[in-house]
Amino acid sequence: MIMAKSEHRPEASIPFHRTEIRVPLFEVDLGKAVYHGNYFHLLELAREDFLRCLGYPYRVFMEQQLHLTIVELSCAYRKALHYDDLVEIHSGVGWWRSRSLAFEQQIYRLNDSGDAQLCTNATLNMVCVRFDGRPSVLPADFVGLLQQWAGKGPSG
Amino acid sequence: MIMAKSEHRPEASIPFHRTEIRVPLFEVDLGKAVYHGNYFHLLELAREDFLRCLGYPYRVFMEQQLHLTIVELSCAYRKALHYDDLVEIHSGVGWWRSRSLAFEQQIYRLNDSGDAQLCTNATLNMVCVRFDGRPSVLPADFVGLLQQWAGKGPSG
Amino acid sequence: MIMAKSEHRPEASIPFHRTEIRVPLFEVDLGKAVYHGNYFHLLELAREDFLRCLGYPYRVFMEQQLHLTIVELSCAYRKALHYDDLVEIHSGVGWWRSRSLAFEQQIYRLNDSGDAQLCTNATLNMVCVRFDGRPSVLPADFVGLLQQWAGKGPSG
Amino acid sequence: MIMAKSEHRPEASIPFHRTEIRVPLFEVDLGKAVYHGNYFHLLELAREDFLRCLGYPYRVFMEQQLHLTIVELSCAYRKALHYDDLVEIHSGVGWWRSRSLAFEQQIYRLNDSGDAQLCTNATLNMVCVRFDGRPSVLPADFVGLLQQWAGKGPSG
Repeated sequence: MIMAKSEHRPEASIPFHRTEIRVPLFEVDLGKAVYHGNYFHLLELAREDFLRCLGYPYRVFMEQQLHLTIVELSCAYRKALHYDDLVEIHSGVGWWRSRSLAFEQQIYRLNDSGDAQLCTNATLNMVCVRFDGRPSVLPADFVGLLQQWAGKGPSG
Repeated sequence: MIMAKSEHRPEASIPFHRTEIRVPLFEVDLGKAVYHGNYFHLLELAREDFLRCLGYPYRVFMEQQLHLTIVELSCAYRKALHYDDLVEIHSGVGWWRSRSLAFEQQIYRLNDSGDAQLCTNATLNMVCVRFDGRPSVLPADFVGLLQQWAGKGPSG
Repeated sequence: MIMAKSEHRPEASIPFHRTEIRVPLFEVDLGKAVYHGNYFHLLELAREDFLRCLGYPYRVFMEQQLHLTIVELSCAYRKALHYDDLVEIHSGVGWWRSRSLAFEQQIYRLNDSGDAQLCTNATLNMVCVRFDGRPSVLPADFVGLLQQWAGKGPSG
Repeated sequence: MIMAKSEHRPEASIPFHRTEIRVPLFEVDLGKAVYHGNYFHLLELAREDFLRCLGYPYRVFMEQQLHLTIVELSCAYRKALHYDDLVEIHSGVGWWRSRSLAFEQQIYRLNDSGDAQLCTNATLNMVCVRFDGRPSVLPADFVGLLQQWAGKGPSG
């Protein structure tokens, strides 16, 4: 089974951040659903929003000549997303170590009835690297903010 | 571990198809490596090439109002790909059932010295669906071609 | 000169709609600026917003089996846009006829000082077509809304 | 009229380079045609091929810390391109000056009957800039190759 859930921290127990997005037309392919590689655009917008709300926007990594590089990802497409769907993306950090971390993200479609339907489930493992490619520890102030955030418990 | 290799059929024992591609500039992001969601463009080009060589181009699925929809994928980015890299993509079908199949694909960078360096390792699970969304069995003639292909043993 | 401004209606005299967007990382290429083909993503998001505010979201065209297809465009990239830039996009309809219309759009970067710097200037000519490709007149209620909007004068 | 043809050098008199490409699935949107911003991917692949054949691949610009930055473009979409269309792209340089040049490109669809149907007509004006953004003259050896090429007359 390729999508075994991370065992570091079960989804139910991590707090998560919510981002609402409307699915753009340019992300949709001829099958009338979002192209599988373009879900990563939606997930990235949600992670950007999460980091901004955490108080550590991605721009701050870059100002230190750092990137969070994706080394491994898995994604389950349970229900296709379509043009103009209103979605809510849940983003959280499942675990982190000195140089790496894993984002856990789910995309829910918000239906007119107010229901939220789980459509997509993704895990992205990242390592912190310098612009020149060398690995780096995660910035200490970022880790401090993650610790605070993790202590909050689920926000949902 | 999120990327546990499919156990249905170890990579070493499936035959695979080779496709050579030069990495386009438009796939590369500000980190000077291919954007993680754009590796799926390269993998798609290679699957298209595989299906064409198998004698069953994707266009033939579509002429029957069928799609192969991706329901689950995982990808390990071991080495980043860069602009103008010459890569060789290995594509094979790890397993298939009546309505579903899994593509196993690896991207190797071809260095000037003639070496091939494994950079990317991906598994994509797909189901066969009608344009209206209902699941469908895989076309019988396609399965026949897959059986022939699987009997050949590794081509490498 | 390929970018001569439309003479149908000088820019200064059409009302326009404002949309604020932050430039996503995935739109940026290895030159550290938005890829030239990806400006059309930002412009599309702004037109979607314009149509929604006009009271005629693009989804309503599609529910009638209609598309607005782009037949001609021109774009002047005066200043490059970068990751995380906050931009304001001005969108207006320069002219319309029974089956066609032209969007005039400008992208301004909002600087920290509060200044807005003109970065991009685009014109997109579109025709209304049915899903089967045959041309169609623009929906009468859409034209009615355009007439109301045009009567308002510049909103800036 | 926004798409007036460049008067510097009529299309009929510039030599052009031919590149054959099959339209990838990932370039196609929900209207079943190539997304308007993605035609620039096809045009870029063709320019890359042109520069490689000229003997001055784009990589050589980058090795000198130079980019050809697009400052203005126009594109007429006369016939839509579809998934799996086999197209031939004609690429030529309409004019050049010390720091700038214009590419003229046309996309033709190759039909089963052997006919070539003009589908897309584009002009892209570029300036040569250093990685730090300062303008630069075009490399002298590149200009020398352009002069040789221009002397050849139309190759079609």
